[in-house]
Amino acid sequence: MKLIRFGESGKEKPGVLIDNKRYDVSSIVTDYNEAFFENDGLTKLKEALQNSTSFPEVEDTIRLGSPVARPSKIICIGLNYVDHCEETNAPIPAEPIVFFKSTTSLCGPNDNLIIPKNSEKTDWEVELAFVVSKKASYVTEEEAHNYIAGYCLLNDYSERAFQLERGGQWTKGKGSDTFAPLGPVLATPDEVKDVNNLGMWLTVNGKKFQNSNTSNLIFKIPFLIHYLSQFMTLLPGDVISTGTPPGVGLGIKPDPIYIKAGDVIELGIEGLGTSKQVAVAYQ
Amino acid sequence: MKLIRFGESGKEKPGVLIDNKRYDVSSIVTDYNEAFFENDGLTKLKEALQNSTSFPEVEDTIRLGSPVARPSKIICIGLNYVDHCEETNAPIPAEPIVFFKSTTSLCGPNDNLIIPKNSEKTDWEVELAFVVSKKASYVTEEEAHNYIAGYCLLNDYSERAFQLERGGQWTKGKGSDTFAPLGPVLATPDEVKDVNNLGMWLTVNGKKFQNSNTSNLIFKIPFLIHYLSQFMTLLPGDVISTGTPPGVGLGIKPDPIYIKAGDVIELGIEGLGTSKQVAVAYQ
Repeated sequence: MKLIRFGESGKEKPGVLIDNKRYDVSSIVTDYNEAFFENDGLTKLKEALQNSTSFPEVEDTIRLGSPVARPSKIICIGLNYVDHCEETNAPIPAEPIVFFKSTTSLCGPNDNLIIPKNSEKTDWEVELAFVVSKKASYVTEEEAHNYIAGYCLLNDYSERAFQLERGGQWTKGKGSDTFAPLGPVLATPDEVKDVNNLGMWLTVNGKKFQNSNTSNLIFKIPFLIHYLSQFMTLLPGDVISTGTPPGVGLGIKPDPIYIKAGDVIELGIEGLGTSKQVAVAYQ
Repeated sequence: MKLIRFGESGKEKPGVLIDNKRYDVSSIVTDYNEAFFENDGLTKLKEALQNSTSFPEVEDTIRLGSPVARPSKIICIGLNYVDHCEETNAPIPAEPIVFFKSTTSLCGPNDNLIIPKNSEKTDWEVELAFVVSKKASYVTEEEAHNYIAGYCLLNDYSERAFQLERGGQWTKGKGSDTFAPLGPVLATPDEVKDVNNLGMWLTVNGKKFQNSNTSNLIFKIPFLIHYLSQFMTLLPGDVISTGTPPGVGLGIKPDPIYIKAGDVIELGIEGLGTSKQVAVAYQ
């Protein structure tokens, strides 16, 4: 299945994407939230789709929201591609680098990117994210595949001055509103042939800056679930993003390139769709 | 008002504390959550309490939960007391150091502290926390007082090896289950004479390790609201903790002291009550 959420921001309804057509499943699902995943909503939805063809179609012009409702956490992994470590002059980490994005940064895949006030270094990061299907604490790597609801495309927008030049932790540069466009879809694992071999790319104003493959991930998803669950309990619906490949603005030689109002950022991961954000100044 | 939540973990009901007696207000309040604060629940509750004496009393033996429901964020400030910087050999920060605790770490004020698996360096931190009353984005320091729902006592438990020796950010050492006992109460601002002059203390097995006053805070609450709201949107019900004074286990000379199973940790802030956690090993 490919899950979507559609409608006005904050009032999204749940839907599914079948053969590139959108269907409204709000008659049987409240939302794709913690309770949905916790109560085996994915299985029930699959059964309902097999038994019915009566879901109303949704027009393509309607806005898409994030494919999951606001989760308890958005956990991100830093420097998880070998080449990205090289471009940022960072050593290859011995263990995953872990940080949170504010959950208020979550937005729809094609919403405008709002460049924060006083920002001069807003940057892009195409990433493979996944959603947790059930409560996870001290999970083994072998069991980890049972905890994946599905996969999504994420742009982990980052304000590099806020992140790196304002003292302390990365938190300040990762959580501005619209800094986490997620989707278009949440693709369940059966939709993805090999999650460790998915092409991924990102362009700014049509020029390709990131072009890689999930085969380059240092720490893969089952290990990440195991690892993270040693430090905190993962909840159903939590979003975990696996890091970005080379080609971010910060790493461009001789001078970094950052996003300015009017720029168009497009990105995609094979099988998970594409998204597009237009950058606007904070008003 | 002094707000409490009482009952079994995950099924808490809202209540109030009046003259050290507990009352159940679940007949008029669903929970102390984002919607409650957003819809001016504090004002409505105050009016209801003035107009009625008919709320059922709650026995003192019933467990207290966190005085607010799981928020969208628990934001913490690091190294916000001059003396604490000195004890940890850290420079006094030019700007607040900001990090998140996992919201799954939230628990009741007197719940057991669960020492995580493989932990050898679980440490304590008594802190003054506050709760956000309404959505805050780019708030001025002058307006910040309008965004405070009230104040709470927090123990910002921290696993120092996870935090400092496992690479990257502090995230891994701050978010284990039971690492954020909050309460006993959320005290509204009118209950607190001078939030910048509150004694605070923490003992382990009866021995006093932390003993300070909020007058020693480097960055005070109105500035923190202003500052944080430049980087992310604060939501009603969000918990923000202002940092810890000297006396954490990590800073003890010649050798740090960490928590072991059976230890009893007690802490308090003037006007905000006390809490007590018994440390147990993860089972």
